[in-house]
Amino acid sequence: MDDPNSRLLADETPLPDTIDARLRQQLTFLIEVDKLKTILRQSPLAADRRRENDAEHSWHLAMMVIILAEHADEPIDIGHTIKLVLIHDLVEIYAGDTPIYHPTMGADQAEREIKAAEQLFGLLPEDQAAEIRALWDEFEARTTPEARFAKAMDRLEPQLLNWMARGGTWQSPGITADDVRARKAAIGDASKALWNASLEIIGEGERRGWARPGR
Amino acid sequence: MDDPNSRLLADETPLPDTIDARLRQQLTFLIEVDKLKTILRQSPLAADRRRENDAEHSWHLAMMVIILAEHADEPIDIGHTIKLVLIHDLVEIYAGDTPIYHPTMGADQAEREIKAAEQLFGLLPEDQAAEIRALWDEFEARTTPEARFAKAMDRLEPQLLNWMARGGTWQSPGITADDVRARKAAIGDASKALWNASLEIIGEGERRGWARPGR
Ligand SMILES: [Ca+2]
Repeated sequence: MDDPNSRLLADETPLPDTIDARLRQQLTFLIEVDKLKTILRQSPLAADRRRENDAEHSWHLAMMVIILAEHADEPIDIGHTIKLVLIHDLVEIYAGDTPIYHPTMGADQAEREIKAAEQLFGLLPEDQAAEIRALWDEFEARTTPEARFAKAMDRLEPQLLNWMARGGTWQSPGITADDVRARKAAIGDASKALWNASLEIIGEGERRGWARPGR
Repeated sequence: MDDPNSRLLADETPLPDTIDARLRQQLTFLIEVDKLKTILRQSPLAADRRRENDAEHSWHLAMMVIILAEHADEPIDIGHTIKLVLIHDLVEIYAGDTPIYHPTMGADQAEREIKAAEQLFGLLPEDQAAEIRALWDEFEARTTPEARFAKAMDRLEPQLLNWMARGGTWQSPGITADDVRARKAAIGDASKALWNASLEIIGEGERRGWARPGR
């Protein structure tokens, strides 16, 4: 096949076929998603000199939901919000990471990601494929309080990493502190307290020269 | 200070002190746990030629809870079980990973981990320190259906990675397939279906020479 994504990890060493068919499909999916650990983001770790991967990022967002849920402006179901952040980047296994400050990659992002969702979630039994797809659609649509809070975590976590890196992706070509504030505004849709803290962090970063001033 | 763990990541670049004290404590903890991404386990990734880290592992267990919960022999609260797996390895930030087949490191593991829990969770506001400590104690005690299922995921995930590596930690010095079965029995305490699948995987690994036969 031409598409490198058409080769499943589990095809390299198929699971014993004595395992029940439904469970075998579930395990095949769970092996395939190991690939999320190899999808690199732009953000530098706070604890090491390398970029973060999507699996680490997803775990970190889930921890943030547990610790920061009290700051949500609308009541949220914590368990459901955690599910949203755990699965929100799975499509990048086939579609790749689209950097937030990238000038052109955003254009066909939605199309690439929908195709990836069909391919990846389609490994699961039908009922579960539909369940994970519904979670991902919910995250993307941001019409529920849980999805808005999940998105806020997705925007806030790299702010913390940029702060620790004294710049990080704030220093992407052509980006100013105003651009950062504009792209982070989704935090304010979920939590005024976290948005105020973000403005403090970006503003102080700007004063220290870690983000370019003005427009 | 002598203890390298006594230096917090957030001490390197303290957050603006204009941020509310409680939120600042929460963000300091959330920055500190970035260190989980640097704690390496013995298991090799399925998707790359390197060892897995604890943050990736914790994310993978959470995905397994979502997909495999239907196989639990007792009813479980999925959101609560996910919380248990997300936090179960946090103490390793200060106590390090104790390999399951290591001959001596297990001896003072409990003591090291309790000290680590007090130090790490103590960064949080008191109510949240108690909440995370209660989750970790629950995971360790395995007296709830959720904790038993969380532990089963912790045992099953490296089985899948060992299978994909055609050996992995099954080939630790002096370890046989019987030893592997003995140390994986906790899977059977949570799910007969998943335990049966594990026995198929280990048994087939033994037949193929990926785990040493017999005792
Ligand atoms: Ca462990």
